[in-house]
Amino acid sequence: MIKKISSTQNSYIKELVLLKEKSRARKKSGLFLIEGAREIGLALKGGYNLDTIIFYPELFSEAQINQFADGSINCIEVSKDVYQKLAHRDTTEGVLAVAKHKEHALESVVLHSENPLILIAEAPEKPGNIGAILRTADAANVDLVIIANPKTDLYNPNIIRSSVGCVFTNQIAMGSTEDIITFLKEKQIHIYCAALQASVDYHTQDYTKSTALIVGTEATGLSQEWRDAATQNIIIPMRGEIDSMNVSVAAGILIFEAVRQRLMSN
Amino acid sequence: MIKKISSTQNSYIKELVLLKEKSRARKKSGLFLIEGAREIGLALKGGYNLDTIIFYPELFSEAQINQFADGSINCIEVSKDVYQKLAHRDTTEGVLAVAKHKEHALESVVLHSENPLILIAEAPEKPGNIGAILRTADAANVDLVIIANPKTDLYNPNIIRSSVGCVFTNQIAMGSTEDIITFLKEKQIHIYCAALQASVDYHTQDYTKSTALIVGTEATGLSQEWRDAATQNIIIPMRGEIDSMNVSVAAGILIFEAVRQRLMSN
Repeated sequence: MIKKISSTQNSYIKELVLLKEKSRARKKSGLFLIEGAREIGLALKGGYNLDTIIFYPELFSEAQINQFADGSINCIEVSKDVYQKLAHRDTTEGVLAVAKHKEHALESVVLHSENPLILIAEAPEKPGNIGAILRTADAANVDLVIIANPKTDLYNPNIIRSSVGCVFTNQIAMGSTEDIITFLKEKQIHIYCAALQASVDYHTQDYTKSTALIVGTEATGLSQEWRDAATQNIIIPMRGEIDSMNVSVAAGILIFEAVRQRLMSN
Repeated sequence: MIKKISSTQNSYIKELVLLKEKSRARKKSGLFLIEGAREIGLALKGGYNLDTIIFYPELFSEAQINQFADGSINCIEVSKDVYQKLAHRDTTEGVLAVAKHKEHALESVVLHSENPLILIAEAPEKPGNIGAILRTADAANVDLVIIANPKTDLYNPNIIRSSVGCVFTNQIAMGSTEDIITFLKEKQIHIYCAALQASVDYHTQDYTKSTALIVGTEATGLSQEWRDAATQNIIIPMRGEIDSMNVSVAAGILIFEAVRQRLMSN
């Protein structure tokens, strides 16, 4: 039987609003919200477990829910008011899911490739940049994305949205810069740090071996710890008036140079 | 003598608010607002003419204005309230300029290089993406950026801000797709269109000759007109769950492949 909720004052709905808005509420409960059928589909494909499906019947029918739910998942039909309170987008689809966090521990990482390609972003802040990085990582089919010293939780609705669901399709780990460097060295993965101070152009290096590409924040760049640990510090040559680049664009240039080399060496 | 304005109800201040908020007001007056000392400096370097300098003396001193103004420019000292009404940023610098539009006609374009590298974006919508594209174009020192069938005016404060002033450092032209294709063909510039339907990987082409790289919108891609006019349609190989990429990341990957080839061929 499908439960119905029509009041935005309902205590469960208030909890869901907190999941949407507060990182702390997401951490405490281990739950988060996913908006949109495609995103929910990608989360299921990525091995996420759903707790509840919430739908607004004028936009999303009970029958359509069958693509996600096997009967064991709670379904809640909500009113327009409630839906609008929970939904984030202007043009929306009428369906949300409450999903359970996954672990993102370094110890749980599984690398299938002998020469993995890993993208690491240190302390990225803007959800839009993190989302764009995750889209690029998906397109490049990298083996692993690592967020070092994370500033935001991964299940921020703006990250899910700007990643168009790629937060679910990538293998993602999080950890301290120190632990990640240990992890990479143990696995003998070459470390290439994008640094404005570097003197070696990125495209002169060989990324067909086990490779981790590391990008820092636009404001402060990579920490000294990373630059000291690097197999090689690399630079994207800049010849304009401004000596910085959007971090997700820089990550894209580096990842696809590695992809290009790997395609050419086949 | 420096004029002082302390009321947000002042009619000139109201006009400036319209310049900040309304594309129509910018078009009608031929004026726009620039926020921040660095951005104003880049605009001057890029050949823009300033009409008025507006400053809030607790954050920006009269003496500092001398870096921009030669005495012929109006200067207005404003109160905190007025400044906050005009400024866009949270962390702000206390200085704004009212500047005059430049022409962005194709006919006025000057290409200094024999083998120019041109980036073209068709109908880009999000100011943040346009800004990131302009940053990348500056870094790559491309000869020209063209916006085809523009959807927004270039002097949108969000474009200026997200480009960190690179809207002033690039040579930028605007025009209809039809006129731009005519322009490129007359100048015998090779046209490479990024298209999801293309079968040729981008990195297999030679961009050391006269090259225009064309990217479309994420939602609809490039128009048929562009794909028909292409020397070659090209694809960034995508091997993930999602078959799209942030448009500014895609532009970055293509431009820097051209830069890489040009550096390697020297």
